[in-house]
Amino acid sequence: MNQRLESIVQWLRHHQIDFSVFTSPSNIFYLSGFNCDPHERLLALFVFADAEPALVCPELDRTRVEEAGWKGEILGYRDSDNPWEQILESLKRRNAHQAQTIAVEKEHLSLERAESLKYICPSANLVSTENVVRQIRVTKDNREIQILEEAAQLADSAIEIGLKSLRPGCTELDVVAQIEYEMKKKGVESMSFSTMVLFGEKSGQPHGVPGMRQLKEGDFVLFDLGVIVKGYCSDITRTFAYRSVSDKQTHIYETVLQAQSATLEMCKPGIPVRQLDETARQIISQAGYGDYFPHRTGHGLGIEVHEYPSIHDKNEEILREGMVFTIEPGVYLPDLGGVRIEDDIVITSQGARTLTRFPKELQVIR
Amino acid sequence: MNQRLESIVQWLRHHQIDFSVFTSPSNIFYLSGFNCDPHERLLALFVFADAEPALVCPELDRTRVEEAGWKGEILGYRDSDNPWEQILESLKRRNAHQAQTIAVEKEHLSLERAESLKYICPSANLVSTENVVRQIRVTKDNREIQILEEAAQLADSAIEIGLKSLRPGCTELDVVAQIEYEMKKKGVESMSFSTMVLFGEKSGQPHGVPGMRQLKEGDFVLFDLGVIVKGYCSDITRTFAYRSVSDKQTHIYETVLQAQSATLEMCKPGIPVRQLDETARQIISQAGYGDYFPHRTGHGLGIEVHEYPSIHDKNEEILREGMVFTIEPGVYLPDLGGVRIEDDIVITSQGARTLTRFPKELQVIR
Repeated sequence: MNQRLESIVQWLRHHQIDFSVFTSPSNIFYLSGFNCDPHERLLALFVFADAEPALVCPELDRTRVEEAGWKGEILGYRDSDNPWEQILESLKRRNAHQAQTIAVEKEHLSLERAESLKYICPSANLVSTENVVRQIRVTKDNREIQILEEAAQLADSAIEIGLKSLRPGCTELDVVAQIEYEMKKKGVESMSFSTMVLFGEKSGQPHGVPGMRQLKEGDFVLFDLGVIVKGYCSDITRTFAYRSVSDKQTHIYETVLQAQSATLEMCKPGIPVRQLDETARQIISQAGYGDYFPHRTGHGLGIEVHEYPSIHDKNEEILREGMVFTIEPGVYLPDLGGVRIEDDIVITSQGARTLTRFPKELQVIR
Repeated sequence: MNQRLESIVQWLRHHQIDFSVFTSPSNIFYLSGFNCDPHERLLALFVFADAEPALVCPELDRTRVEEAGWKGEILGYRDSDNPWEQILESLKRRNAHQAQTIAVEKEHLSLERAESLKYICPSANLVSTENVVRQIRVTKDNREIQILEEAAQLADSAIEIGLKSLRPGCTELDVVAQIEYEMKKKGVESMSFSTMVLFGEKSGQPHGVPGMRQLKEGDFVLFDLGVIVKGYCSDITRTFAYRSVSDKQTHIYETVLQAQSATLEMCKPGIPVRQLDETARQIISQAGYGDYFPHRTGHGLGIEVHEYPSIHDKNEEILREGMVFTIEPGVYLPDLGGVRIEDDIVITSQGARTLTRFPKELQVIR
């Protein structure tokens, strides 16, 4: 059994929990090595305090589970089967169907599956398993950081590709197409989320969707993108001015850059997360844009593009070495457009080490 | 209030349910017009038997909700807020916090959110709302079918692009890159799932992942892909032989094609869904490949790439006009490779009308 699973087993024993059921693909990947998006099908990892673990998956994924190195039991079901019947049999073999306490991912497990679990283990109380995995996953080991750095460097190169493909009159989707094409050519299996390229006033929508908006002089050009490498995500944002820049645009840009830099400076072990958000927010508010920074300052990054910790002003969690997250303040003015600058960082004993390194000084693209 | 919401309201009143909470992005899009993947953030639509509906979303999405034409209440929250506090206030204004019965999407709602809901509405019993929406969504109206057809035609053209980009020694990811690039150039905002291009023995994995496998003579080339148009998905699979084909490969191909054609012939209003699966499975079994067809024969298609109905041998649902789903039998031999042939169809009074129309006769690509 690998060390991560061993930690879960120790936790189960310590808290006298009979077993834990994991259903989120990210935790299953982290704990079992099997990386899969099962869509609506059931994928579940059962970890027992005192028995061999079991992975429940569609029968057609069995080979891939084995290839991923999974050594425990595999419960494969077909589309017309009810997998809970197999699960019950498997629990009975371990005498675990009389469990008193089962830990589940309450944020992920659907109510329907919770009811199925309660149906086959009627005497069980369901408690939450999220925090324990979160606390294991939140600090990355050297191998993980190396992969995250590789993913971040590819994200840097994607920004470069995006910049090179800008032409007057090109559409946002043209640029998205070019970036994703070249990333795939480099062997990237998938982006960590839908690549965002927004021009002009569209950059003023923090969750804007790239479309047929054409590039013209005076536009902000905002890129927000990332790639997945060996199951780990990167996430970078850079904003540029196209051919000319107004004083107002410059002021917004410099404000965001100053907020981002000051927040990076603040990062070191022992600092509470909320101070990062407060730092960024204070600078942006003092510049008069407080109402135009409607999101948190960042988010954890790893197997998921948004994971723990969330960098907002109520998070009292303390920074520790090995944490990896984004710092991404932004200012969005509905008609003029928006600026966001985002880096991926890892906390070291020295402070923040940035994994994304594309230059951040305001550039006017010619 | 639109007709779809009105149907929900009627259903709530008929069953004396106080209100229904929708949390799946697809149902929220279907009912409200707002199409958004909120990732881990809460997005929820509250539909009341006797009060104005409310949409809960991140504050930064407020503008997009309005642009989508939503006329009901919008409860926007910031990342550091607890949205359930705002929800409780909103329920109190409608005197709905004393609800006795609340309908929720049990397959989608997380246990944690179910507990939050129970916390603010302690006297409520939670029942399932999935079936009612499923029964409304399962038959598509003319506008939906028109969009699905548009998406299917783009999928046909993506197969054409894929074929044209095959070169000896090219990798699976090269071909994926070319297809997605040209789709984006045509204005497609996103594919309906990760484009699958598999060569040779890799086509023998029903859920294989494209990588650096290089194309060589004698390979099967399997494409499984789709695009999203105006929120609706297409999904096509075609398999080709590259430069040469063995007798065994031909036998597999012809078996799958025969199974697919016979299943399409079988489709008409009044037939139970299970007969479709039985038809495909019987032909494949008689040819000796029964053990190598490990998945259902198809799945519903619409806002989601996998939705109701599931085409498997235990589904007694009866085919009705306007249903849209895939027919996609396959045979996978671990070392030799696999064949799958998949069309999107709509049930009409005359039978199955195919939306995807790329030719299906075995082609040896030169």
